[in-house]
Amino acid sequence: MSSSTRKLEVVSPVPADIDIANSVEPLHISEIAKDLNINPLHYDLYGKYKAKVLLSAFDELQGQEDGYYVVVGGITPTPLGEGKSTTTVGLCQALGAYLDKKVVTCLRQPSQGPTFGIKGGAAGGGYSQVIPMDEFNLHLTGDIHAITASNNLLAAAIDTRIFHETSQSDKALFNRLCPPNKEGKRSFSDIMFRRLTKLGISKTSPEELTPEEIKKFARLDIDPASITWRRVMDVNDRFLRKITIGQGPEEKGMTRETGFDISVASEIMAVLALTTSLGDMRERLGKMVIGNSKAGDPITADDLGVGGALTVLMKDAINPTLMQTLEGTPVLVHAGPFANIAHGNSSIVADKIALKLVGPGGFVVTEAGFGSDIGTEKFMNIKCRYSGLTPQCAIVVATVRALKMHGGGPDVVAGRPLDRAYVSENVSLVEAGCVNLAKHISNTKAYGVNVIVAVNMFATDTEAELNAVRKFSMDAGAFDAVVCSHHAHSGKGAVDLGIAVEKACQNITQPLRFLYPLDIGIKDKIEAIAKSYGASGVEYSDQAEKQIEMYTQQGFSNLPICMSKTQYSFSHDASKKGAPSGFVLPIRDVRGSIGAGFIYPLVGTMSTMPGLPTRPCFYEIDIDTETGKVRGLS
Amino acid sequence: MSSSTRKLEVVSPVPADIDIANSVEPLHISEIAKDLNINPLHYDLYGKYKAKVLLSAFDELQGQEDGYYVVVGGITPTPLGEGKSTTTVGLCQALGAYLDKKVVTCLRQPSQGPTFGIKGGAAGGGYSQVIPMDEFNLHLTGDIHAITASNNLLAAAIDTRIFHETSQSDKALFNRLCPPNKEGKRSFSDIMFRRLTKLGISKTSPEELTPEEIKKFARLDIDPASITWRRVMDVNDRFLRKITIGQGPEEKGMTRETGFDISVASEIMAVLALTTSLGDMRERLGKMVIGNSKAGDPITADDLGVGGALTVLMKDAINPTLMQTLEGTPVLVHAGPFANIAHGNSSIVADKIALKLVGPGGFVVTEAGFGSDIGTEKFMNIKCRYSGLTPQCAIVVATVRALKMHGGGPDVVAGRPLDRAYVSENVSLVEAGCVNLAKHISNTKAYGVNVIVAVNMFATDTEAELNAVRKFSMDAGAFDAVVCSHHAHSGKGAVDLGIAVEKACQNITQPLRFLYPLDIGIKDKIEAIAKSYGASGVEYSDQAEKQIEMYTQQGFSNLPICMSKTQYSFSHDASKKGAPSGFVLPIRDVRGSIGAGFIYPLVGTMSTMPGLPTRPCFYEIDIDTETGKVRGLS
Repeated sequence: MSSSTRKLEVVSPVPADIDIANSVEPLHISEIAKDLNINPLHYDLYGKYKAKVLLSAFDELQGQEDGYYVVVGGITPTPLGEGKSTTTVGLCQALGAYLDKKVVTCLRQPSQGPTFGIKGGAAGGGYSQVIPMDEFNLHLTGDIHAITASNNLLAAAIDTRIFHETSQSDKALFNRLCPPNKEGKRSFSDIMFRRLTKLGISKTSPEELTPEEIKKFARLDIDPASITWRRVMDVNDRFLRKITIGQGPEEKGMTRETGFDISVASEIMAVLALTTSLGDMRERLGKMVIGNSKAGDPITADDLGVGGALTVLMKDAINPTLMQTLEGTPVLVHAGPFANIAHGNSSIVADKIALKLVGPGGFVVTEAGFGSDIGTEKFMNIKCRYSGLTPQCAIVVATVRALKMHGGGPDVVAGRPLDRAYVSENVSLVEAGCVNLAKHISNTKAYGVNVIVAVNMFATDTEAELNAVRKFSMDAGAFDAVVCSHHAHSGKGAVDLGIAVEKACQNITQPLRFLYPLDIGIKDKIEAIAKSYGASGVEYSDQAEKQIEMYTQQGFSNLPICMSKTQYSFSHDASKKGAPSGFVLPIRDVRGSIGAGFIYPLVGTMSTMPGLPTRPCFYEIDIDTETGKVRGLS
Repeated sequence: MSSSTRKLEVVSPVPADIDIANSVEPLHISEIAKDLNINPLHYDLYGKYKAKVLLSAFDELQGQEDGYYVVVGGITPTPLGEGKSTTTVGLCQALGAYLDKKVVTCLRQPSQGPTFGIKGGAAGGGYSQVIPMDEFNLHLTGDIHAITASNNLLAAAIDTRIFHETSQSDKALFNRLCPPNKEGKRSFSDIMFRRLTKLGISKTSPEELTPEEIKKFARLDIDPASITWRRVMDVNDRFLRKITIGQGPEEKGMTRETGFDISVASEIMAVLALTTSLGDMRERLGKMVIGNSKAGDPITADDLGVGGALTVLMKDAINPTLMQTLEGTPVLVHAGPFANIAHGNSSIVADKIALKLVGPGGFVVTEAGFGSDIGTEKFMNIKCRYSGLTPQCAIVVATVRALKMHGGGPDVVAGRPLDRAYVSENVSLVEAGCVNLAKHISNTKAYGVNVIVAVNMFATDTEAELNAVRKFSMDAGAFDAVVCSHHAHSGKGAVDLGIAVEKACQNITQPLRFLYPLDIGIKDKIEAIAKSYGASGVEYSDQAEKQIEMYTQQGFSNLPICMSKTQYSFSHDASKKGAPSGFVLPIRDVRGSIGAGFIYPLVGTMSTMPGLPTRPCFYEIDIDTETGKVRGLS
């Protein structure tokens, strides 16, 4: 029996999330680490309730067998969310505190944007949460801040390099890039050899370069119109979506239209989520393409001389953060790309460490963003492709509320009271919505994993409605379908789910199958994914055609695809609920995250920078300056 | 004898900073804390070599007597810097490791802007450094990231509020600010009462408000042209100095010219440096004025409903970070406002905690930015005014190199080899430059403290030159003048300085005198400071006149003044070396940091966002991905 787990006394009705979170005294994180047999040499404390687990912990466990690997996806959600994080945490509390299994929950770090804008936080809910909730929702251990800092250092380097190249001759440029030292001798810094090698120049001293080689080396000749790298900020700041920069007098008219994305949409976040080691991260960061030269050659962070500095800024962020659930089971929090505009999964590094820590018979449960068409598709085809890991079981979280919406129920709008249809029994409306559930089950089963439907019960759901969902799930080929009440009853409410998951993991019958191979064209891969959505075809804008041709010509067509699509429908049209089919998927643009390792088509118009509503939830957030306790996060 | 201090074996010539820093194995920070008798309950570890000291440590030591309080300023520097941080650290290594005194060094956190742009780092130098140098120069414990996040949340709140007010009627606005709950009942959130009280509305429920009161409460009616709040980033990004925002289609033409400052120039950094408790910080953040309503009333962070959320984002940042020097003496790193564009001193909170920890006979040594006309003036007239603390001794750091420059030596340009004049004996050039030193001595003595000149010796200085400086200093009224070699010889090279400082602290004869009282007009205060520079008068632009009148009319004329002026001359003209006089000081603009508590006149054109040179030092910065060791920071 693990020493750190405990069973919670629950009350009804369920109190506010922050009151539950504040009612439980977290264990000192060293106790959680001890329970996982992590040697103190292999983690750094960040206060009393957080610790960064160092990659050296993984090196020491190389020989150890992995535990079971479970991914939690969902049906197409309402804007209120269907409790996927809560189910992920509740399941782990059940496995750890009630079924006495070694378990680690691997979750994404929430962006501060939604925390202060519309969401108030994302640490699970009710009696299934990660604690301390404020530390989880605020700065955690600084990973997103490190991403913001490194992303924006690269952005500043791009515009400043164009400025210096515009105002200096080849000779002056080269003279400043390789200045003579006190003894008058010039030398290349280490990182410069990466560009020299790329240019096929094997000379080792600046003095040896011909004027022609000097020009090629010193002049990146970046085409401003080709720059895809944007600045980022972890704040919902809609007024930075589209801006003009360089209007200061000293920038001499070198203005440029660009914009900011939310930090979690940065390619550096995707690199952090997909990297497998410090060395791998160094290479990926250096390879990130920010745009092209006027001759059409891809320009990388290493070309700008900043790949090393980016890695130094990210060197602590590569270590996942250890926290705990309300019932004392361990959590690794690492990376937090949004699932609609990015690949929506926590890090490979955290999963790999966790699988060794739990060992054979143990469980690692990780959450993939939004519906299975979004998070689970990217978990399988991008994350598992890069990690080489194979899940045994995939969970599809469903709610009566979302199924009613898919069945034709009235609009669900965040911030507005729910329509009566959602809080009074209507079995036929639920059944009508199950077409959405069926497609998520079949899409997920196609990967070769056992699929379990977890019906996340709300207080207003009736037995008839819940049973209808269970029955439908089994008929649709689910390995099992379980009603869970972990929000109201903590881990105890997910014990059946835990038992079903263990059975599913023990009865895996097929190898993992990707939706598409890598060695086919970019269009073929996009069309394979579109087909899985139910599309009858794909339509490319001129811009998209141009980008696909460019990436193909630049040799990047072998990368996986990360669709940037609305989470509110299988299609590109958020209003199309249920299981739409026969639609043509419009690809508006195609961009490349070459360092992270995927091409991402933009389906319809996807915003990469959310806004603040009229009454942002920061109106509720404050602090008791006597006790230091935070109020208003939820 | 303290258990954590040690005497370093030095080699000659002095190796590179990072090689020295990497050659010493830092002590686990818990040993440094133990040596200072800090109870583990009162600090949070952030890895093995950093810890945040909680304010609760101060509460426990209230009854304890303070130690001696020493500020380190300097003469007007060259662009290369004159080793003020190195002298501050070297003095403390001498006091702690050689003279067996209880000592804490209080330093500013360096901005990542210069670290990756021109400076490579700021942890002292040679054998007098803070270690681990990379942790000091990178993210430390996230304080500047917290400032960036909170500053930009407030910025997003401003523009988004203007947008929502423009597109909504009073009624719709009010309906969203105070929406009915499930039972149809409306309520004010706690923070809303701050605006209601300011408006003189004492009603407690939204339903009671008259239409007129609803309009006054819900409509901030911000005048876009009056907004002084700018977004910030801790990156040298010159292309964000002046930008146009709001050009996205969804922002419906609500564009606005604004720009980014470097994060350390944010008012929130000044609040962090000047605050005295969590409660005080909550009030200061809420009081920050971001601009005016169209009727001319100041609009605050609390008016926007975000003061509480800002404090939550800053709640960990209020705790200073404990680190160590090469010779094992403790360092508190907290806050890092630049001295030219802000008030250039580390935090009051760190000094207060440190003075209790060292106790009677112990020493707290803190560094004030740039020359005494900049950092020391603001230390005395702003920092000591708010802290109520009184220094006994002030150090003026001088170098032969800078004095030669003031004596008429050739220009000193960062990145270019020094002119021969600076590396060959020239006593008369040194003596000619001592007029600058004399003015810094007299300006500093005017505060009532004993002044010690610390001559920071460079390898190329000759005995005759050093003696000339010593002799001049004594003639100019210094309490003492000591030649130090802590860069080359660690603390051992500053033992004489330590002895002199102790004597100065034990022989204080006068109370602290401020340069100006608070209860006189803004212009009178500006003119008092200008006079101390040697100016014969002050000239105000129309904009400056308008702002002074506005702040006076709004009741803010009682605040101290923080001059935003070049550090390279007593005057506003960086080329005017030595001790210029008879010049007229041009005040271009006047702004207010009402939350931090000062008015800041802009002298000449001061950039609040540095740029990157053609060859930024990030070209040198990288990481050994096998060992994790950082290269290239200096």
